[in-house]
Parts: sequence; C-alpha cells; structure tokens
Amino acid sequence: MVSFESDYIAGAHPEIIKRLTETNLEYLPGYGTDHYCESAKEKIKKAVGRDDLDVEFLVGGTQTNACIISTMLADYEGVIAAKTGHINAHESGAIEYTGHKVLALPEKEGKINAADLERFLIDFFADSSHEHMVIPGMVYISFPTEYGTLYTKKELEAISKVCREYSLPLFIDGARLGYGLMSKSNDVTIGDIAELSDVFYFGGTKVGALCGEAVVFTKNNRPKHFINSIKKRGALLAKGRLLGVQFDTLFTDDLYFKIGEHGIDMAEKMKEIFRARGYEFFIDSPTNQQFIVLENSRMEKLKEDLAFSFWEKKDETHTVVRFATSWSTTDEDLKALETALDK
Amino acid sequence: MVSFESDYIAGAHPEIIKRLTETNLEYLPGYGTDHYCESAKEKIKKAVGRDDLDVEFLVGGTQTNACIISTMLADYEGVIAAKTGHINAHESGAIEYTGHKVLALPEKEGKINAADLERFLIDFFADSSHEHMVIPGMVYISFPTEYGTLYTKKELEAISKVCREYSLPLFIDGARLGYGLMSKSNDVTIGDIAELSDVFYFGGTKVGALCGEAVVFTKNNRPKHFINSIKKRGALLAKGRLLGVQFDTLFTDDLYFKIGEHGIDMAEKMKEIFRARGYEFFIDSPTNQQFIVLENSRMEKLKEDLAFSFWEKKDETHTVVRFATSWSTTDEDLKALETALDK
Amino acid sequence: MVSFESDYIAGAHPEIIKRLTETNLEYLPGYGTDHYCESAKEKIKKAVGRDDLDVEFLVGGTQTNACIISTMLADYEGVIAAKTGHINAHESGAIEYTGHKVLALPEKEGKINAADLERFLIDFFADSSHEHMVIPGMVYISFPTEYGTLYTKKELEAISKVCREYSLPLFIDGARLGYGLMSKSNDVTIGDIAELSDVFYFGGTKVGALCGEAVVFTKNNRPKHFINSIKKRGALLAKGRLLGVQFDTLFTDDLYFKIGEHGIDMAEKMKEIFRARGYEFFIDSPTNQQFIVLENSRMEKLKEDLAFSFWEKKDETHTVVRFATSWSTTDEDLKALETALDK
Amino acid sequence: MVSFESDYIAGAHPEIIKRLTETNLEYLPGYGTDHYCESAKEKIKKAVGRDDLDVEFLVGGTQTNACIISTMLADYEGVIAAKTGHINAHESGAIEYTGHKVLALPEKEGKINAADLERFLIDFFADSSHEHMVIPGMVYISFPTEYGTLYTKKELEAISKVCREYSLPLFIDGARLGYGLMSKSNDVTIGDIAELSDVFYFGGTKVGALCGEAVVFTKNNRPKHFINSIKKRGALLAKGRLLGVQFDTLFTDDLYFKIGEHGIDMAEKMKEIFRARGYEFFIDSPTNQQFIVLENSRMEKLKEDLAFSFWEKKDETHTVVRFATSWSTTDEDLKALETALDK
Repeated sequence: MVSFESDYIAGAHPEIIKRLTETNLEYLPGYGTDHYCESAKEKIKKAVGRDDLDVEFLVGGTQTNACIISTMLADYEGVIAAKTGHINAHESGAIEYTGHKVLALPEKEGKINAADLERFLIDFFADSSHEHMVIPGMVYISFPTEYGTLYTKKELEAISKVCREYSLPLFIDGARLGYGLMSKSNDVTIGDIAELSDVFYFGGTKVGALCGEAVVFTKNNRPKHFINSIKKRGALLAKGRLLGVQFDTLFTDDLYFKIGEHGIDMAEKMKEIFRARGYEFFIDSPTNQQFIVLENSRMEKLKEDLAFSFWEKKDETHTVVRFATSWSTTDEDLKALETALDK
Repeated sequence: MVSFESDYIAGAHPEIIKRLTETNLEYLPGYGTDHYCESAKEKIKKAVGRDDLDVEFLVGGTQTNACIISTMLADYEGVIAAKTGHINAHESGAIEYTGHKVLALPEKEGKINAADLERFLIDFFADSSHEHMVIPGMVYISFPTEYGTLYTKKELEAISKVCREYSLPLFIDGARLGYGLMSKSNDVTIGDIAELSDVFYFGGTKVGALCGEAVVFTKNNRPKHFINSIKKRGALLAKGRLLGVQFDTLFTDDLYFKIGEHGIDMAEKMKEIFRARGYEFFIDSPTNQQFIVLENSRMEKLKEDLAFSFWEKKDETHTVVRFATSWSTTDEDLKALETALDK
Repeated sequence: MVSFESDYIAGAHPEIIKRLTETNLEYLPGYGTDHYCESAKEKIKKAVGRDDLDVEFLVGGTQTNACIISTMLADYEGVIAAKTGHINAHESGAIEYTGHKVLALPEKEGKINAADLERFLIDFFADSSHEHMVIPGMVYISFPTEYGTLYTKKELEAISKVCREYSLPLFIDGARLGYGLMSKSNDVTIGDIAELSDVFYFGGTKVGALCGEAVVFTKNNRPKHFINSIKKRGALLAKGRLLGVQFDTLFTDDLYFKIGEHGIDMAEKMKEIFRARGYEFFIDSPTNQQFIVLENSRMEKLKEDLAFSFWEKKDETHTVVRFATSWSTTDEDLKALETALDK
Repeated sequence: MVSFESDYIAGAHPEIIKRLTETNLEYLPGYGTDHYCESAKEKIKKAVGRDDLDVEFLVGGTQTNACIISTMLADYEGVIAAKTGHINAHESGAIEYTGHKVLALPEKEGKINAADLERFLIDFFADSSHEHMVIPGMVYISFPTEYGTLYTKKELEAISKVCREYSLPLFIDGARLGYGLMSKSNDVTIGDIAELSDVFYFGGTKVGALCGEAVVFTKNNRPKHFINSIKKRGALLAKGRLLGVQFDTLFTDDLYFKIGEHGIDMAEKMKEIFRARGYEFFIDSPTNQQFIVLENSRMEKLKEDLAFSFWEKKDETHTVVRFATSWSTTDEDLKALETALDK
C-alpha cells in the first residue's frame, strides 16, 4: 500500500546506502573519532559558512533534544517552548526525565511569537516569588514546526533579539530542517539559523538518513565534557561511523538540500492534488507535512488504499490527518494517491 | 594499519548490509512496528527455544543497561554488580543518572560468585538500619565479562539460585553474548541463559551489526508501557526497521552464532600467535578479547604497526593492553599481527 | 508592623510550644518510631473516622508533594493538576526534578472541573500516539486551592468519579486543609476527603505547627518501603518527635480544627473590614486567604503600616495582593488593619 | 530506660527551647529571610573568623549532603568518598537520586588518606577512556567520621592540597562537627576547617538542635540561585525562623562548642566505665560515638536495661554496637550504665 504516513517510512537515501556499503569493511576507531565524522563536521561547517561551530552527532530527535537541553540548562532553569512543541507534547516526558520543566507558551499554528515571549519574561521577572518558580533558561522552537509551518526571518530575528536581551540561548529543533530551508515560501538561510540561534540541528532521520541528527553549537559553545554527558544519557554510539558516513554523504554535493527540495516539490504536487479535489486543509503548511480535514467515513474508506497518520479529532464527524512527503516520495506514489482519492 | 582495537572497528556483516540495501525502499511503519521487527522477534524466540519471551530492540549497550535496570528496579532499589562490571566502571554514571545506585561486589577476573552474593544479601538484611540503605533489587552480570571470562553453567545456576531465593531478577549483559556462547570452553547454552536469567540481551553492536541490542525478557516480564519508558529515555528509534532488518538477518541461518564462532576461531589463532612468542597473558580469556601484558617500550614500538587498546597500567614499566577479534577479523589481519610481532 | 503576609508568619500554636517543652528531655528513638508519632497517627485515624489509613509525617509542603507524587506514579506517568496548582506554578520544578511531568489543566479560580478532566482523558486515550506521550497517572487538586477557593462536595464527587473510572489516584493537597474544612461555606467533611481521595494531607506548617505535614494514604495504600524512598529524597527527619509531638497536640481536643475555625473567623472579620471600605476583591475566597485589588499608589502607601503579599499585576495601575489570617491573627491585628486603612 | 542509642534521642538544648518560646509570637517573613537567620549567619561568620563566607540553613544531614553535592557537581561529575562515608552507605541512595555517582575510596577507621586519593586521581586521568567514566568532581569527608575518628590537621592539609591540585572542591560533612572540634585529641580549629575546605556544615540535629544544619560555603562560592535549587529539592523550610532562632542560640555565648565539650566529657567518662570493666573497643574513637564489641548473649542481656545501636556483626558470636553521648547525656545516665554493666 502506498504510504504518506510520515517522512521516515523508507530506509536511507540510496547514496547513503551506497557509501555505507563501500566503507563497510574499513577499520575505524569508535565513538565518533573516525575520519568520516571529522570530514562530515568540516562539510557541515562549510555548508553553514562559519568557523565558530562545534558539531556533534546523535542518533534520534528526542535523544538530541534531551541531551542539548539538559546539558545547557542550569539546575534551576527550565526551557520555554510552544505548547505544541515536540518536547512538550510528544516525547513521553523526556525533558522532565532530565529534571527540568518545560515552560509552555501559547502558540499559533505551532509558532510562538516574540511579543508573547517577551511578555512572559517581563511577567516572570516582575513576580517577587521567583525563588519558588522555574527560571527560564532557554528558548526552544522548531523549524519547521510540528504543524509544518515556518518562522519568517523577521519573526526569528525578533525572537532571537528577546533571547539575547534576557541572555537565554535559542535552540532550534531542525528535525525537518531540510524541508524548511527548501520551502518555496521560506526566507531564512542556514546562515541566518546559525546566526540567530545558539544551537540547532540538521535532522537526518526525517531527511534521508537511517538515523542521526547533526547538532551544531553555533558559538563554539558545546557544553564541557559533552561526550561524557551523552554517554551518561546512553546516547553515545559505539560505531560512530554510522553517523559519520551518513552525514558526510548528506553534506557532499548538497545532497541534504536536494533531498529537502525533492520533498518540497512532492509536497507542492500533493497539495495541488488535494486542492483540486476540494479537500479542506487544516493549516496552510509550506513544508512536507500536510494536514487534511477528512469526514470520518471518508477517512475510513481512504484507509483501504492509503497509509497516513491520525493527527487529531476535529469534531464528532471530522478528523485531522497528516500526509507527509519526503526524499522517498515518487511520482508513482502521487499517482496512486490520485487514484485512491478518485475511487 | 591493521586493528585489533575492539570488536566494533568494522561496519556490519556483509549479509546485513545486503539486506539493508534490499529492503531500503520498502515503506514501513516506524518505531519498531514493522514486519522485520516482528519476524526478528519470532526468530529470536525460536533460537532461544521458548515461547514466554518478550523481545525488544534498543540501539546500544549503555542505553540498554540503563533502560532495563531503571524500568525493572523499584524506586528504593539498587542493582548489584561486579566492581568491574560495565555499568559500574565504564558507562559514565548512566545508571546513577536514572537515580539508582550500583552496589559493587568484589570480583575475580570480572566475575562475582554466588557465595559472595549470598553473604552480601545476608549481611544486608541482618543490618537493622536498612531503611537508610539502598535495597538490592536486581543482580547484573556480564556474559562474557568485561575481562572476556565466562561463568560456567554451575556458577550461573548458583547465582541464579541465590537470586530466586531473594526474589531478585537476574540480568545478563550479553553485549558479546555470541562470542561467549561459541567459546570452546563454554558449557552454557542459550536455553540456560534464558532459564537462569530474568532478562538478557543479544548484543548486536559487537557481534556483526551496525548497532542494536536485542533484549529478551525471559518470563513475559517486560515492564508495563515499556515503549513509553524508552521513549522517555530518548531510546526509541524512529526507523525501527534498522534494528528489525539487522536482527532478522542475524537470526536467519544461525548467522549470529556463526559470527560468534568466527570471532572465537580467530581469537584462538591469535592467542596461539602470542603464546608461541612468549607473551604474557594478563588473564586467561576464552573469548574474543585477549589481554596481553607489554613492556612499555615494546608497546610503543608495536603501536607503529598495530592498533590495540590500552586497558590498564600494570606497573611502572608494564601495561595491560587488549587485542580483540570479531566477525571481521581475517587471516590477513593475523598474518599482519605476526609480521608486526616478529619485526 | 502588623503582618497579614501569610499564614506562616508566627511560630507554633502555644499549646504546641508547651508540649515540645514538656517532652523535650524525654529520650526517644529517631526517624518517626517514637510513641508520639504513634499516638499522633492513632488520633488522626480517629479524627478521620477510618481504620484503613496509613499516616506518615513529612516536613514541608513541596517536599510532601514531591514524595507522594513520585512514589505513587509509575515511570511513564505524569500528574494532572490545575495550571495554577502549587506543584505546577510555585515549587521551582520539584515534581519535574523527580522525572515526572505535570499535565496542566485549565482552571477557574484555582479549581479544575470534572468535565474538563474527563474531556482531557477521553482525548488522551483517543490519540493513537500515546506511546509518545506522558500517560496520566494521578490527579492533584488543592483544598483549599491556591486562590483560597473550595470544591463543593458535589464537585469533589464528580472529580473522584472520573478518577475511579480511569483508575487514577486522587491526591488532595491539604496545606491549608484546616481552614478549608472550617470555612462557613464548606460542605465537605474530613470523612468525605478520605472517602473521595486516595491520599491527602493535613497541612501543619500553615495551620499552627512550626513545620510538618501529616500524609494520609486512605486505602492502606502507602507505597512499599516508603521510609527508604523518603530517606532517598532527603525528607526523613532524624528527630521525628518534632513532628510526632506537634501532630499529637494538633489532634488532641480538636486543636487542628479550632485553629482552622479561628483563622476563618478572623478572615470573615477582615473581609468585612475591606468590604465596608469598598475595596475590590479579586476573587470571592471563603477561606483564610483574601485577594484584594489595590491601586498601585494606594498599595505603596499601605506598605508603610502593613505587611501583605504581592500576588500578581492586574493592569498598569492596579495590583492584586494577598492578606492572610491564621491561628495567630488577633483582634488587635484587625484593629491595626482598620487604622491603617482609614489613615 | 536509659538510652545511649544516638546523639539525637533528646529534643533540643533547653536554651533553644527557651528562645523558640520567647520568639514564638513574633511575626516574621518566611523562607529564611527573617532577622534571626541574618543574625545567626553573622554569628557563624564571627565564630569561623572569616568574612568571605556564605551561610545557608537546611533541615537535615542527608538533605544537606544531597543539596550541596548536586548543586556543586557538573553534570558529568561524581563525588569521591570513603566507602564507609555516610553518603555512600547510609543515605538510601540520596546522592544517586540526584543523578551522580559516589566514587568510593578504601578507608581505614572511616578515613581516607591523601596518598590513596592522589593515586586514584593519577590513575583516573591516566586512563585513556575517561570519556566513559564518571569524572571526579568533589571530595567528601566527614569530621568526625562515621566511626567517630578524626583527621589530624596534617592529614586534612594533605587531602586539601591534593584537592587544590586537581581543582576539586573539598566538602566536609560536619553532622557532628561540635564533638569533633572539642575532642581532647583534636588539633584542627574551625578556622582550619574553613581554610582547608570549600564547603562544610555545622551539624545542628546531633549537636543540640531539634533539626537543622548550617552550611558554610567558605569562598563566597554558594551556587547561583541556591534557594531555587533547594526549593526544587523540597528542602526550603517555610518557617525559616525555626532554623534561624536555633542557630542564633547555638552561636550565642559559644553554646555550640559548649555542647560539643559536654558530649566529649561524657564520652570520656563513658569510655572509662567500659575500659575499667575490660570491654573491647572496636575502634579507638576520640569523639562522642563509641563502638564496643559485645558477645551476643551479653548484648541481649544488656538490652534489658540499656538502649544502644546495632552497628555491625563482628563474627558468629560477637556484635559491634554503638553507645553515643551528646549534650543531653547526664551523670545519672552514666550511673545507670554502670549499674547495668555491673548487674
């Protein structure tokens, strides 16, 4: 059955599989000290266009979020995030497991805004009892958000400005960064991301890798003894080559960005297919995740031919579902979608 | 340079790379719900020869140890381990990070024994102040141990018996289980492991996989909501297929055991090479890790041609180093070893 | 200066000081095993009117909340609370420090309601991805709430009913329970509290003790090895007698309830003083905490003669402040309040 | 029955009870901001004889150890302690609960020595794999130790010197500091303690208070936002006055030291009573805790007239027990001891 269930339904981009195969018998030291990791780090720095970066590789998104947040926060601090932020809603309490609170802000289509953030901070520091409260220590946003939406450069700048005023590091979850950067309506460059944030990551898992996220500390601000800290969290991969070879491949000949572009092209075509048939979009997403409102019996019918994700109940008779594209989506998949919709 | 640095210096067994390539474009659901995971679980149950098993896949050894121990211990409990046990010595405090103490027992060549264990438990429960102490809640051993040694069936039975008397689950860290089971001097079967323990794992990372450990709860005793708990620890892999395909391959046509056998055969040949040249063995290891005592200047000389691991300082002029074999060790590697030793 | 800053501005009720003095030189065993603790527990059971209770003493409110919640929740669970609940807003992240998330519900005047709770649970269990979410494992409410308000018996019954349907323990934070029970508008008995909840506590710190909270597990459901768990959290008092003597005194001749009554009587008189002078009440509180809206310059003026607490900014020119009564409030204090207001 | 069970069997020194009574009705702000806390801090600074101190009050010893250690260690660090150190042996895993490992060193009569410490640190930093190990981040010792023994000034200086060389803060657990300082064989002054350590505490619970420990950061090195951190750990007392008044009293007219002296005088007399009757001392303790070896049937007999503590089993027929004196021990108590021993 054709599937639009997520952007992690296929294995890895064929080029990655090829490189894993070619390098497979090479003897390499473990724990991220091999030359593929080194090479991948250099290529990432080049892609970002800065020298003052520390790059580290981790296996998955939740792990990455927990490792970054818990090593960058002080004991008494919490992390500010949109109520719908992945760390607040869909990580089974991984941040709280590290002993830190997520301070949830209201959001619109998955995005917080600088004014709400500033208001929160002003109110917080006005309160005389903040010795009994969790002190804000970091701001977390996703680009794209969990709803596929994007911050504009102006919005990002405004959020970053508030963060700088309050000396809060800004962390950008880039699990789907490749799709965000290549979106037709995006005006944010990877250079902007690095400039405006203090740490972000290039998501690999959802952008063509078997697994892996490339964390970029943007001001040579990697936490001290970071390897010990990630080992302590069970996050240090013995065969670091698995991450090194993958990211080395993704950052050779702009593959990471090409994958993003393909996913976006497929998403645009998919949107057109739904739009042409009068389907209701729950949200206007400019990236690879599309949220469609389906009448419940229609949804059940479509399930016979298509795989997609439940997102949320809209009302008694309607459901919001997600259709995602990725590097692996083909024109045949889209054709099958049309056929199923027209059946 | 030829390397005997560890058993994770190469990628994956070629059969695994082949299957990852073949299945790469298949669309599969995430988080371990795909049919390869299902198939691998069935094959593992068959290999163990029992029906009452719950099998789960995790990415690495430290992660696996922390997930199992922290989900099986009660709040007020700690885990008993050899002082040299991996969880006590080489995981950067990953168990303590989960809030639990490792209760270290004396060991000999990496092994604890039933009598010491029983004595510890008798003394513990004799102490009137155990409301101020960490209550023993599990016993952790490694098979093979961190020194390459093995428990005999009789030793394992004795430890298991003490555990049962005190209602303590017995957890066997099988990071190198394949090499242990196939050792010439081993008298423990995989059926014994399952019978005598409450949970163990087939290590993949060091036995032919790119990554992955297959946890086996041996009495249908998987902790409730285990997936939530591992997600909470950042240990749930989105593309579970990466683990499913690998273990499905490892447990097809006994590949896992054949890999173990190859590693052991190479280790036996390697031991003979050292023995013939009069090298001192730090310990009599019957598995794939060999510990050799080198005079320091000799060690520096050998480093020019060979990669191996520092283990520990023996005295001012001698060092213990580790030479490991694995599925990837070749006759050419051994030849190069001979050449280097004879230079 | 006369103070209405909180209900913990004075030491202990004189009867408690008297008993601490009288028993001071008696030699007693430590850690809560003395006969005053035993006697206090029996008197508390009698006051509640049930036999199936486990009573334990802890030192302070935040400590109590953290100990109860973290020992009653399973690893993968979180606690539901009002957004304004003490554990969510004013404990510096003490619950998250134990590794558990607070799942915040909307509230009105500090209260959640059964319908919102049920809706939250229905939605939660409808979501197909709850392996990636924190599973609700307990419901926390305060009686009185942080805004001084009370649940009616009917409201409590409805919340308790939802909890039972979903097998969630109901935890009632009774930091100010004495004032709640004795409020003129209260229709909930201590028997109801025990019947409808699974665990609650008689707050001592704010109801006449120097320190101390008496936790009541209402279904003989004290967590196993609870003493070890509280020792592990640094919450076990060596001289348990300090808590035993205090609660023994508070539950002799209904002192706890008389203290509550006095605090309420004083609060009613205080309300009348404000009401007669046309002050605006931020909330209609039937207990010992009163929230008054003050014009900012008026507030600054009053600070010259009175101590009270900042609560929250209302708008640019107005502030909400708290005036609290307690067992220690005197008629002279109220007279001084009148004088200050009329100045 | 006369009791030598511990040094926390009586309430508080009568002078403390008197001051608590006298100040009881005074209205004071909460959470340690009252003038008694301020005054107590000043008096403590004066007693120590330094200006560069930060003083904070906590409720009990385990809580204090956990708060200090977990706020002073970095994420990747553990604390070095004697194997018999309180934090390693008798706090139910409170340090591990904060996510940090206790690195146990061998000890003699409860004491570690500088040479072992230095050896441990040299070996640790020689090991090439310390990214997989817990990095030593602090040294914890007790003065007196859990066996009543004392470090000499020379020993302390040597340990402190090693700590400084490795930039490790030295933390001295002073739960019984008053008895240590006043021991006849002690050559360490309170000035030495402050000079040689980075943080220590004056134990109150075992030296005349109802509860309370006065933490002294000796280089104005109190962790940032310490109040938030202790609130987060459930360790912030609402009525901070309870600690303030007690320590203000203990540090008025040298009461703390007089209490220590009385406990020591009584201990010396008690030792003489045992010595005169030929009892075997398990250890030669110069402070208020004495460890006596009793033949088991003799022990049972003595229990009829005396309360004392089980310490450890010595062999099949003998047990080590503890007899403790304190500020509350009277000549009548010692008379009763003689009578019981001579019965």
